[in-house]
Amino acid sequence: MLSAIISLIYQEGDFLAFLLSGGITSAFGGLAYIYTRGAKLEVTKRDGYVIVTSGWLAFSFFGTLPFLFSGAIPNFTNAFFETISGFTTTGASILNDIESLSHGVLFWRSLTQWLGGMGIIVLTLLVLPFLGIGGMQLFAAEVPGPTPDKLHPRVKETAKRLWSIYLIFTGAEILLLWIGPMNLFDATCHAFTTMATGGYSTKQASIAYWDSPYVHYVITFFMFLAGMNFTLSYFAMHFRFDRVWKNEEFRFYLSFTIIFTVLIATGLYFSGGGGVERSLRDSLFQVVSIMTTTGYATADYLLWAPALTTLILVLMFFGGSAGSTGGGPKIMRIVILIKNSTQELKRLIHPNAVIPVRFNRTAVSGEVVTNVLAFLAFYAVIALISIVVMSGLGYDLETSLGAVAATLGNIGPGIGDVGPVSNYHDIAPVGKWFLSFLMLVGRLELFTVILLFSPAFWKK
Amino acid sequence: MLSAIISLIYQEGDFLAFLLSGGITSAFGGLAYIYTRGAKLEVTKRDGYVIVTSGWLAFSFFGTLPFLFSGAIPNFTNAFFETISGFTTTGASILNDIESLSHGVLFWRSLTQWLGGMGIIVLTLLVLPFLGIGGMQLFAAEVPGPTPDKLHPRVKETAKRLWSIYLIFTGAEILLLWIGPMNLFDATCHAFTTMATGGYSTKQASIAYWDSPYVHYVITFFMFLAGMNFTLSYFAMHFRFDRVWKNEEFRFYLSFTIIFTVLIATGLYFSGGGGVERSLRDSLFQVVSIMTTTGYATADYLLWAPALTTLILVLMFFGGSAGSTGGGPKIMRIVILIKNSTQELKRLIHPNAVIPVRFNRTAVSGEVVTNVLAFLAFYAVIALISIVVMSGLGYDLETSLGAVAATLGNIGPGIGDVGPVSNYHDIAPVGKWFLSFLMLVGRLELFTVILLFSPAFWKK
Repeated sequence: MLSAIISLIYQEGDFLAFLLSGGITSAFGGLAYIYTRGAKLEVTKRDGYVIVTSGWLAFSFFGTLPFLFSGAIPNFTNAFFETISGFTTTGASILNDIESLSHGVLFWRSLTQWLGGMGIIVLTLLVLPFLGIGGMQLFAAEVPGPTPDKLHPRVKETAKRLWSIYLIFTGAEILLLWIGPMNLFDATCHAFTTMATGGYSTKQASIAYWDSPYVHYVITFFMFLAGMNFTLSYFAMHFRFDRVWKNEEFRFYLSFTIIFTVLIATGLYFSGGGGVERSLRDSLFQVVSIMTTTGYATADYLLWAPALTTLILVLMFFGGSAGSTGGGPKIMRIVILIKNSTQELKRLIHPNAVIPVRFNRTAVSGEVVTNVLAFLAFYAVIALISIVVMSGLGYDLETSLGAVAATLGNIGPGIGDVGPVSNYHDIAPVGKWFLSFLMLVGRLELFTVILLFSPAFWKK
Repeated sequence: MLSAIISLIYQEGDFLAFLLSGGITSAFGGLAYIYTRGAKLEVTKRDGYVIVTSGWLAFSFFGTLPFLFSGAIPNFTNAFFETISGFTTTGASILNDIESLSHGVLFWRSLTQWLGGMGIIVLTLLVLPFLGIGGMQLFAAEVPGPTPDKLHPRVKETAKRLWSIYLIFTGAEILLLWIGPMNLFDATCHAFTTMATGGYSTKQASIAYWDSPYVHYVITFFMFLAGMNFTLSYFAMHFRFDRVWKNEEFRFYLSFTIIFTVLIATGLYFSGGGGVERSLRDSLFQVVSIMTTTGYATADYLLWAPALTTLILVLMFFGGSAGSTGGGPKIMRIVILIKNSTQELKRLIHPNAVIPVRFNRTAVSGEVVTNVLAFLAFYAVIALISIVVMSGLGYDLETSLGAVAATLGNIGPGIGDVGPVSNYHDIAPVGKWFLSFLMLVGRLELFTVILLFSPAFWKK
């Protein structure tokens, strides 16, 4: 409906397409509401998994309507790929001529990511800790809001607080980009896709279209914010900076950003990537863009020296902070993995001592460490099998590796044939469906989707 | 000294080179023996790590002498690379014209692997469980021999039993190969490098030199045996086949072999890799060669369809069974990883139930699971950092990935520029030293070497 208004403002022909899409979706939503109203159902954990997965699938099916009706993406496979890539905040695109699209379509495309981001904040900070997925319990105690006795009242109150921050950040970014060389429309679309760490742009060349340090730095700053735990932003807004600074995931997030930026900037500078400022800016932008899983591009990292491209590929397996809109394995899990490994060395030296992994100054239970490691193992196994599947469809190793890392990690651009200046247009339909599935699996923290394929799940 | 005898037999000019090498090594060994004789030292675990690592380094330094003195490999970096590749049973080579070498040198080259294999059997079945590395405790109870109260008497008695099997298998393979189209010399060298899962051949074309199904099947069979836990072979020799069949690692080892062979054979058959027998034989040989980390080649898997090459790459991260001469992460750890992940799904469905990982019908303690997962995490982190280092030296992603997988996993041939028909000759010296280090790290189960770099290790 919002896109219909945009269509009216710009006097474009696809006003009716948006109205029809909105109408059909509302009709289905209305029917579902009427059908379930008054039913007092206890939502079990099992239901939770089904609701979350089918919810994201439903968004993505209905979300194709504006693309199909407006004729912007006439092919259903392509439309579904573009939509689920939006709602999962991935940003992998099949569009070869983005500038030819109407304002209404561009707005809808950006909006899918922004809405997906809103969903993810609530999912990772409120629903997943309740389900106990992959160590997310570590954050249950951290989230602001009433005590977590029941899910329902907690979700409502806390969601409001977190979404208000999401809104404030989005508004601030729109304003700052609008002050600069962007018009209001582009500023809004980019703020939507930055805060969701989505990465859809209104330009084919992505952020490289604006050859403006100001734009690059503003977007880098907001990508970094979007890749932070929104709970920490909530504390920062209330001037409790100590809680931000004391948070270990934040410290590692900042450290990784600095280390990778310096490494890549040094490499770029000495391999002729421009002056000091340019090398530093390109490096910082790309590091933050990939680590937060946004996927914007100001430079084609496939043209960099091999080691720098490899560093970007390694970063694809980091991901944003837990409780951010970022995808991937998440900084928190990488930190637990590294800490457990270094503790293992100490355990070998002192076999009789109990040497727990400490996170945020408290000992993490062995159970949670196993949860986290099991998650990462799953991530690796799914990635490996998917790379075999993609190369089975005939893609070379780099493209297969890039496409899998970029979709499972909800990043968008990968390496090989699906790098930052190319896209997923030429991937075969079966490949597009497979990668769509990976985006969903990655976005919903693996287990939410994989569990539905487990026979044990369906046993009474 | 054995090589000196070979030189005499074939009347080759490097008899003195071997005699000198043997003399120098014996002199150092003799001095070390005299110096430490009579000292009643208690060997602590800490000493264990230092002894194992410096032992393998000492072999590799003295092992270069025959190559240097005979002039076969005049360059020290190359000689060291070739020797440590031998003693770690890796099989990565820098030699471009193997057939031009004397029989004495070829014999020495094969012997380094055979001796390395003997060392590894004792290391993994007797020393590492004692040190508690990466879940190796799981096997402590399985090893035949007196109860593990003290390391010393146990090592002597059990080592004898395991080495007798190693000898019997080597003898049997020599005989079977000699019956076929190989001469006694080639049969001996190949039996040495098969049983060690080393993979050095006396021919530049590796096993592909013999276009004989008989040779291929015999070698496949013995590679498979070498990749089995030698404890199980001990039981099989005593007609206790039930213990073999009940062993879960063996079942998975067999299953992985069958699954990958069928997948690749099907792919080869339909992509024109020859008839049914040829496709099946090439597939089986290459799967067993890579999974056991032997690294012999009968076909260039880089010329296969991308998906088949990718499957081979995936196999590089499996490795042989624990307690075999194979390298890599080991089947046992991969099985624990997979089992823990599937148990994690059950844990999510039944959050209050205690759901342990079962291995060989007994519950594995959470501590051992964490040990195993920490090992695999270390393996992944070391591999990732090493890939970045190799690409930093200017190698493309495939070559970097291939070289790291093949040396850290003690396989030999990788993918990219270090595939089965090429070798490591053109890698820069710094790269050769780095890869030599990786071979040592991989062969000594990571922690043995890495611990020495940990500050905590050197604290009193």
